[in-house]
Amino acid sequence: MPDPSGAAAFAPLTRIAIVGIGLIGSSIAQGLRANGFAGHIAICDREGRALETAQAMSLGDSYGSSAAKAVAGADMVVLCIPVGAMVAAARAIAPTLKEGAIVTDTGSVKASVLESLTTHLPPHARIVPGHPIAGSERSGPDAGWATLFQNRWTVLTPPEGVDDEAIDIVQRFWEGLGANVELMDVKRHDLVLAITSHLPHLIAYNIVRTAADMEEVTEAEVIKFSAGGFRDFTRIAASDPTMWRDVFLTNRDAVLETLGRFSEDLAMLQRNIRWREGEELFDIFERTRAIRMGIIDAGQDTAAPNFGRPESTDEDKSA
Amino acid sequence: MPDPSGAAAFAPLTRIAIVGIGLIGSSIAQGLRANGFAGHIAICDREGRALETAQAMSLGDSYGSSAAKAVAGADMVVLCIPVGAMVAAARAIAPTLKEGAIVTDTGSVKASVLESLTTHLPPHARIVPGHPIAGSERSGPDAGWATLFQNRWTVLTPPEGVDDEAIDIVQRFWEGLGANVELMDVKRHDLVLAITSHLPHLIAYNIVRTAADMEEVTEAEVIKFSAGGFRDFTRIAASDPTMWRDVFLTNRDAVLETLGRFSEDLAMLQRNIRWREGEELFDIFERTRAIRMGIIDAGQDTAAPNFGRPESTDEDKSA
Repeated sequence: MPDPSGAAAFAPLTRIAIVGIGLIGSSIAQGLRANGFAGHIAICDREGRALETAQAMSLGDSYGSSAAKAVAGADMVVLCIPVGAMVAAARAIAPTLKEGAIVTDTGSVKASVLESLTTHLPPHARIVPGHPIAGSERSGPDAGWATLFQNRWTVLTPPEGVDDEAIDIVQRFWEGLGANVELMDVKRHDLVLAITSHLPHLIAYNIVRTAADMEEVTEAEVIKFSAGGFRDFTRIAASDPTMWRDVFLTNRDAVLETLGRFSEDLAMLQRNIRWREGEELFDIFERTRAIRMGIIDAGQDTAAPNFGRPESTDEDKSA
Repeated sequence: MPDPSGAAAFAPLTRIAIVGIGLIGSSIAQGLRANGFAGHIAICDREGRALETAQAMSLGDSYGSSAAKAVAGADMVVLCIPVGAMVAAARAIAPTLKEGAIVTDTGSVKASVLESLTTHLPPHARIVPGHPIAGSERSGPDAGWATLFQNRWTVLTPPEGVDDEAIDIVQRFWEGLGANVELMDVKRHDLVLAITSHLPHLIAYNIVRTAADMEEVTEAEVIKFSAGGFRDFTRIAASDPTMWRDVFLTNRDAVLETLGRFSEDLAMLQRNIRWREGEELFDIFERTRAIRMGIIDAGQDTAAPNFGRPESTDEDKSA
């Protein structure tokens, strides 16, 4: 449960370095301030434009393009960068990392990140990889907001040997931002997320591509009649391409495993349609409703129709 | 463009029969009243509970379980029922249909509906099949709302030989409800909607089923971590099973065609992942963003992140 006492959650920390100030890094910075963190927030990013935006938004206390400088003296480093950039970041911060600093991250794949960090960080670093299951299709610091993690889950995958105090500090950090925290083995995380996040993104990217490539149907028609269901998929398929390329490359085996199952099931549905097996179709379509109800009951999605899109109300806000 | 003059849009009509009072029928009834229709709305449904709800909501002027009685004397009949129920409905209303009455519908597949209606209705009926591209995952009369069709497209697929006046009346009817209207050939409609609506629903049903069936991942985990993308698919997969079974059975060929393309594309993505072809993945993920922008620019989805879900704002409304 979120820690109601705000600032106390961040008590042991006096300087936090956020490496990478995109949607996630920005939401952490905003969440820290909103929840009473009074220490120093050091922000770094390789892109000048992101840094300028972060500075204009007053997201932190210092800004720069050097990760090595940002992490110097920090009690905690949060790597908010694509999974494929972890090795380079670990190498960059290794020389200046404070003795016993906690290094965590927000990457969507955990086995790969853990390996990158343990290989390239000095042994004194206390590594507690993490993954907040929250986000949006937008990218960049101006896409973030302070309550992004509120009532969402953050998974921590601490390796064997890391001390309990470090795990506790990272857990309280996320609870301070409003998240619920669950500890998990890296392998299990990567399999569970393959089905609840990675495969859905792959499928969404794929259907949007298929629609765009249909030579008998114009792109204008696809757009015009997208409210029939297609538009839902385009949101996810508008997610950051670099981040998602890295997810599929680094969680390759679990994604291929879940994709294989998806394709098998789809082949069976295809056969049901070809052979006009209406009862089989009905039974499958009937079963899937229960999961939606479970998600709404668990507070992981809105109960409002159409996700509560502005148009879905009696007041017409869509104009 | 929507007709701003409200009631004038419905001027030639004095009695409208709505056969089937679910989400769509209810939204039509509410929209008619909200936009100034002053004539008689006759509502019928096979299910007593739907009728009771409709009556409690004062959606119409008369209520009953007999379609034959409801359509007697009606200038326009709107069949708001699953595509697979069209033959039975056409047979039921044929004997009492007023000379020259306009018969339209809201089914998601048009070739099949056109055939059902032309085969089973008397020759004097003026048949103008229609399909409003709007809805939600909810079912039943209490799920409807008056502005559901506002700024959405309704496709009409009038057969050759139907008089222009009838087409014009149906077009003005939908414009009066706030919709944009497009005329299309039945075959083209069925192909375009296969990719923008039917395939997305099939894919959504399938991924939810695959996730539910994964023995290594519990349903509780799927629900807990659904905010990673999965939850988006569960909305569509909560749609009415009867309606969607009928769609796949009656638009079989176009669905199989688009599904074949989707599966080919997915196999290629699978190969890209297996062979670690990052550049190919990036290029595909980069392309798909443009379609999202097109949909937002065309007013067919909200620009707000996460569909404007209540949680996606600085005020925390998710609790």
